[in-house]
Amino acid sequence: MNTKSTYKIALDAMGGDFAPENEVKGAVLASKILNQNNKLEIVFVGDESKIKGALSKEDTSAINYCIHHTDEVVDMHDDPTQIIKTKKNSSLYKAMEFCAEQKADAFVSAGNTGAVLSTGTILLGRINGVSRPTIGSFFPTAGNKPVLILDVGANLESKARYLYEFAVMGSIFSKQMLNIEQPRVALLNVGEEEEKGTQLLQDTYKLLSQSNLNFVGNVEGRDILQGNLDVVVCDGLVGNILLKFTEGIPPFMKTKIKTLANKSLLSKALLLFITPFMKNLFKELDYQQYGGVPLLGVNGVVIIGHGKSSPTAIQNMIIKAVEFIEKNINEKIKIALNS
Amino acid sequence: MNTKSTYKIALDAMGGDFAPENEVKGAVLASKILNQNNKLEIVFVGDESKIKGALSKEDTSAINYCIHHTDEVVDMHDDPTQIIKTKKNSSLYKAMEFCAEQKADAFVSAGNTGAVLSTGTILLGRINGVSRPTIGSFFPTAGNKPVLILDVGANLESKARYLYEFAVMGSIFSKQMLNIEQPRVALLNVGEEEEKGTQLLQDTYKLLSQSNLNFVGNVEGRDILQGNLDVVVCDGLVGNILLKFTEGIPPFMKTKIKTLANKSLLSKALLLFITPFMKNLFKELDYQQYGGVPLLGVNGVVIIGHGKSSPTAIQNMIIKAVEFIEKNINEKIKIALNS
Repeated sequence: MNTKSTYKIALDAMGGDFAPENEVKGAVLASKILNQNNKLEIVFVGDESKIKGALSKEDTSAINYCIHHTDEVVDMHDDPTQIIKTKKNSSLYKAMEFCAEQKADAFVSAGNTGAVLSTGTILLGRINGVSRPTIGSFFPTAGNKPVLILDVGANLESKARYLYEFAVMGSIFSKQMLNIEQPRVALLNVGEEEEKGTQLLQDTYKLLSQSNLNFVGNVEGRDILQGNLDVVVCDGLVGNILLKFTEGIPPFMKTKIKTLANKSLLSKALLLFITPFMKNLFKELDYQQYGGVPLLGVNGVVIIGHGKSSPTAIQNMIIKAVEFIEKNINEKIKIALNS
Repeated sequence: MNTKSTYKIALDAMGGDFAPENEVKGAVLASKILNQNNKLEIVFVGDESKIKGALSKEDTSAINYCIHHTDEVVDMHDDPTQIIKTKKNSSLYKAMEFCAEQKADAFVSAGNTGAVLSTGTILLGRINGVSRPTIGSFFPTAGNKPVLILDVGANLESKARYLYEFAVMGSIFSKQMLNIEQPRVALLNVGEEEEKGTQLLQDTYKLLSQSNLNFVGNVEGRDILQGNLDVVVCDGLVGNILLKFTEGIPPFMKTKIKTLANKSLLSKALLLFITPFMKNLFKELDYQQYGGVPLLGVNGVVIIGHGKSSPTAIQNMIIKAVEFIEKNINEKIKIALNS
């Protein structure tokens, strides 16, 4: 347990679709929860006047903060790999630089995921023993806990060693952050048998079998949501397509329900009752609620959220960042991959 | 339009989980629809006494049939690639052999998909110009028509040329069988821009752009269900994982709804009203209703159904097989890939 008295969070205040309002609100909420003992300091990085404007609408009695002004903003159309050349005065770059220079303990952003990945990997560097940093995502399940799928797009083409490292990092993250004693790790494949799948998957199966992970074997797509798994490993192409497919389910179902409801007056009336049910169901399919996902494998603490992150999502991302630091997750990854 | 007077369908009567009952019922149903002019002849391939037993319970006044007895059955545990060596007297092999020897015009089975793929490819051979036969699957959409995703597992590793051929075959199939004048063909990727994705996807993008297909570009996972696409091309690893993921959604949602319903008495009461809605929704997610999928690219007509195919699904598979023959789809594929 890391026992530093105060954690400085560099918050990319211009990152999300509702920036800086949601970022400011989320930071205020997180401070109310964590700041009994001045545990948290927020470094808002972004447009000073806009941040001040947003802060003026909030009760700031519980928040410790400072503002670092930046002129530029990374948007969704920026080429992620070019940020370190072209947008050095952006809120995203500067906030990451604070972490790299150890002026902050963690980085939190609801901005361009690719830009966070690329900038974070370069500025922070990789943990000793990590070949490729990875981004995972939580999928809801029929069980009590979500399942962590990784990689979901950081590495479109993988090697067996990369997938093995993703499994190790995901397992440590699940154990520490979700309090799962022996995370069940699976390899996403087209069948359960050891010899199934591509050469990459067969080689990965061997590495995982020989590891001291709680490897439960190959699983198929239908197993992901059933609640029997904690960590599912796949290459970034498969993971990204699956993640985005999941995002497409709620709008699809809404349309289908409306179509059914339009068939009769009785159906229309029933729709009124069904709507709250469906909302809860959709919420389960919404990965925001888990408070962002980490960029695993870099020498630093990086939490990334959806562009549409609500104040509560931002709050949770900040809380998760503090937990990530306190639990020394990066040190544990380093030990696991170098032993 | 092919105008042969009678179509002989070799039906693997032992293929599905409810064989031969569902196969027999489906054949009787299809005959009632198609047999005004003796258009259809069913060759039941399988255990003669069991087939006769099942037929004895049906009204056989409209069906033309013969039975070819076989002793062996291919099950889900058989290695697909070994059928041609070890199970030459199975219903699956024999029915396929009838097609290869032109004693039947089409093959229909609800059996082991991999075995149909493997046996079909070897016994029937490939259409001139086809590198790899492919299996697609229909996904439901928010629109009026399903979308055809291919490949869903026949080819785990692809080349750009293979994916291009899948697009051509899928487009012809959609146009002919779903009456879509200009099927919208998309490439499944991690972003919309031309330069996104792996080298394979970038190369495939180029081939598709230069083709005379109605290529609408790269799409992401979230676009699949929205109803704006007719054919989506991906490698078999991605397609198979997506297909099976989709199969996992209904059980996941049922559990979630039950959990919500258990929270209060009112919720329990509402569940009664919701159930019929959800059933319809699940039906939409059930690819059986489209009457099986074709094995595209082989020198013959092969329709494959889910192991749990209902009599109606078998009926639809037989009807689709006849339509596939009448519309000369294989000839159109040959012309498109050799011009």
